[in-house]
Amino acid sequence: MEGRRRLSILHNCMIITMDDQERVFKDGAIVIDGDKIIAINQSSLILKEFGTTGHDDVEIINLNGKILIPGLINTHVHTSQQLGRGIADDVDLMTWLHKRIWPYESNMTEEDSYISTLLCGIELIHSGVTCFAEAGGQHVSGMARAVELLGLRACLVQSTMDSGEGLPEKWGVQSTDYCIQCVWQPVFLVRHTPSFFCMTNVNYIDSRDQSQKELYAKHHNTADGRIKMWFGIRQIMNATDKLLFETRDAAKELNTGIHMHVAEIAYENEFVTKTREVDHGTVTYLEKIELLQPNLLAAHSVWVNDTEIGFLSKAGVKVSHCPAAAMRMLGFAPVKEMLDAGICVSLGTDGAPSNNRMSIVDEMYLASLINKGRETYLKGTTDPTALPAETVLKMATINGAKSVLWDNEIGSLEVSKKADMVIVDPFSWSMLPVHDCISSLVYSFRTENIEAVMCNGQWIMKDRKIVNIDEGQVFSLAKEASQELLKRAGITIPSRMNFI
Amino acid sequence: MEGRRRLSILHNCMIITMDDQERVFKDGAIVIDGDKIIAINQSSLILKEFGTTGHDDVEIINLNGKILIPGLINTHVHTSQQLGRGIADDVDLMTWLHKRIWPYESNMTEEDSYISTLLCGIELIHSGVTCFAEAGGQHVSGMARAVELLGLRACLVQSTMDSGEGLPEKWGVQSTDYCIQCVWQPVFLVRHTPSFFCMTNVNYIDSRDQSQKELYAKHHNTADGRIKMWFGIRQIMNATDKLLFETRDAAKELNTGIHMHVAEIAYENEFVTKTREVDHGTVTYLEKIELLQPNLLAAHSVWVNDTEIGFLSKAGVKVSHCPAAAMRMLGFAPVKEMLDAGICVSLGTDGAPSNNRMSIVDEMYLASLINKGRETYLKGTTDPTALPAETVLKMATINGAKSVLWDNEIGSLEVSKKADMVIVDPFSWSMLPVHDCISSLVYSFRTENIEAVMCNGQWIMKDRKIVNIDEGQVFSLAKEASQELLKRAGITIPSRMNFI
Repeated sequence: MEGRRRLSILHNCMIITMDDQERVFKDGAIVIDGDKIIAINQSSLILKEFGTTGHDDVEIINLNGKILIPGLINTHVHTSQQLGRGIADDVDLMTWLHKRIWPYESNMTEEDSYISTLLCGIELIHSGVTCFAEAGGQHVSGMARAVELLGLRACLVQSTMDSGEGLPEKWGVQSTDYCIQCVWQPVFLVRHTPSFFCMTNVNYIDSRDQSQKELYAKHHNTADGRIKMWFGIRQIMNATDKLLFETRDAAKELNTGIHMHVAEIAYENEFVTKTREVDHGTVTYLEKIELLQPNLLAAHSVWVNDTEIGFLSKAGVKVSHCPAAAMRMLGFAPVKEMLDAGICVSLGTDGAPSNNRMSIVDEMYLASLINKGRETYLKGTTDPTALPAETVLKMATINGAKSVLWDNEIGSLEVSKKADMVIVDPFSWSMLPVHDCISSLVYSFRTENIEAVMCNGQWIMKDRKIVNIDEGQVFSLAKEASQELLKRAGITIPSRMNFI
Repeated sequence: MEGRRRLSILHNCMIITMDDQERVFKDGAIVIDGDKIIAINQSSLILKEFGTTGHDDVEIINLNGKILIPGLINTHVHTSQQLGRGIADDVDLMTWLHKRIWPYESNMTEEDSYISTLLCGIELIHSGVTCFAEAGGQHVSGMARAVELLGLRACLVQSTMDSGEGLPEKWGVQSTDYCIQCVWQPVFLVRHTPSFFCMTNVNYIDSRDQSQKELYAKHHNTADGRIKMWFGIRQIMNATDKLLFETRDAAKELNTGIHMHVAEIAYENEFVTKTREVDHGTVTYLEKIELLQPNLLAAHSVWVNDTEIGFLSKAGVKVSHCPAAAMRMLGFAPVKEMLDAGICVSLGTDGAPSNNRMSIVDEMYLASLINKGRETYLKGTTDPTALPAETVLKMATINGAKSVLWDNEIGSLEVSKKADMVIVDPFSWSMLPVHDCISSLVYSFRTENIEAVMCNGQWIMKDRKIVNIDEGQVFSLAKEASQELLKRAGITIPSRMNFI
């Protein structure tokens, strides 16, 4: 029957909308038509209006008092590093980079990147993520295939560097032009493909041999609009001025975002102060060259002073705070100060060798704890009121959406937005009793409580099972691919105990 | 057939023994006879020796490459606070104590404490804990019943205070003698008891009306030896000198431990410096009065200087580090310095209103991150090599056992020790790939990966289900009891968002 719509109604749930009015429906319902939310209100009203109509096919799902939240947004994640989880634990920063991460990344194939992104994506979905911002990785086309298959939403970025000491040989030769807009250089690498991975009949193209503009043309707005292409700058110590300028201009021309690691370590600021003749560091220099714009997603931003916080705020730059990686490798970002200055701060996991848990649920918990504890050094005592739960929940949802320039469609549960959402079951040992629903979602909530995940109107996890892929098959492929990759890269991990 | 033993063999697993030689069996097996480990070795050798004997009944379980670790030990947990999870989030310390925690605790019944400990115990078991040190709570007899029923191992402690401003009226009247050794004052409070809670025919006795010596006589070495009674001192600001002296002497007389909150906040040290005429704080005063002994478990110990670290080390005091609670409420404990000074530091979750996740698995992850990050303030950069995974794993196992004065029987998987152990399934999205098994158990491991838990030779969780109790029934009781308790205590939690 032409004209009949297929509607889904989720009702009898607590809906945390994260809209401007911070509305929470204690017994709410939501109506989904295709990829969009078309109504949200009290259960009784929704059921009256949509539940009994004869005009449409209606699927009615009773959530029995569970909690519905917007899909979480991870604004800094290296998906192609997932196969390297555990390869660089408890080592100093130079060993981490030169002996582990660069050899790992420079030896990846596109198939490795695909498998890595599949494995990472599975973890992201189990952790309630429906959209992520790739932080800069290898072989974007591999990532894109995985994202399309899993049903996720993503802003993809190629790891881009055109200078810097100590880079693996094959990376060192890339010119700036090559990074941004080189001509098409197809390298067809046909590899073994298990049948369930075949999304299309296209052979794999090694995307490291493609410029960012090429990748943009190929992937932007693909997968039903779930994939966006952004520009990437790995970090200022691996970027010429030419790369910075051309990235700024290319992103403006194509009306897309730039994802860059900013002010990660104190040494970075010293380096910039010396080489770029500014008085503080990266943020000050980016201000000078007009790279601070609303389309810049500045990851970490740990070592920024008050003046620079002012620059970031004034320019509308978004900051991705990655609590675990920062505590481990970088330091304490002035998150409270940035939020107080009106900066949109969101949350990221960073990559598996920096974290190693890839869960925004855990990052919410950490963000709260770390930023309460950090006050000790400023005031002589922690501030348990700093970064309250409602702020942290915003960081993981609507601030995430703003950070990826997508808040017109995602980040809150509102009429006409895309249907990206997570069903949380609070009725278990890890959350009960729930005296304060919002704080429970930050302090007690664990990935165990996530029952189902919808992205773009489609269930991508149901009953804690990934819908579009066989998880076990990905685990087997990941085990094999990661072992071979470490062998190729010559990475060995010393034993910590007496293995017999 | 008399004389036949009933043996269990777990084989084909990676066994992290945590013994003195730090042995890890890559393909190991373990043999359990009753409550004890009687053999541990390579799978092939164990199966040869025990698998084919005709003399015993042998149950052989193939773990298919999973990981076996000693039962984790939580050395600081307020089990009777579990019903108060979420009642004191994002509030300042004075509100936390005076408006939320003290009203909550002073209005508890023994039945509340029983239900609270059941709910807490369920979370502890799911998180791989087989033994815990109660940090000081209400109604020890309620706790003891729950511990006995769940099959856990515990050192129980009554919350003990005999002075201090702002205490609820019913606590203020307790004399020191009353705390330590008052005569039996039975108060029989018969309450509604769902049938599955009836362990014995004894009516409930309100244990707040019993002295610690009475509780010792009643509970020490009960539940097949799984329960020990310790002495408690809530904190120095709520203790007279008489209580400190008598606690020290009573614990010595009965050869048991003392659990005390020590140097939690900077103000505590100021208070002690003023009132007790010492030059620094709590630890300095405890040294002076000879309370620093190997049987003292000093929780938190955040605000200690180098001299005091020396005192703790020399005296053999054990320290319970509670990363989440410290970050939120107290500050950064000098854990690296304490470990370097040879102090036995273990891990605790603290109570649900301080944390709110009650998982030693999460505390391992946090301990690593927080103590790497803390170095930033000392050195200008984090130290990713601080508190390496093997150290953190020790803190949660063998150091935990030493902290609760029980390392002769638990804390490692060794012949003649008690059979307390956890089966970890690493073959899932949250841990794969496992390139570094030991670091994976600290940085990637989540409660999801815990499949089964054995305490004292008995499975207390199997296939992620608690064995001795119906979890759903506890959840219902906990919901009801916690709502009534908050009502009695006059605690209301403000709304954070616009609930409609």
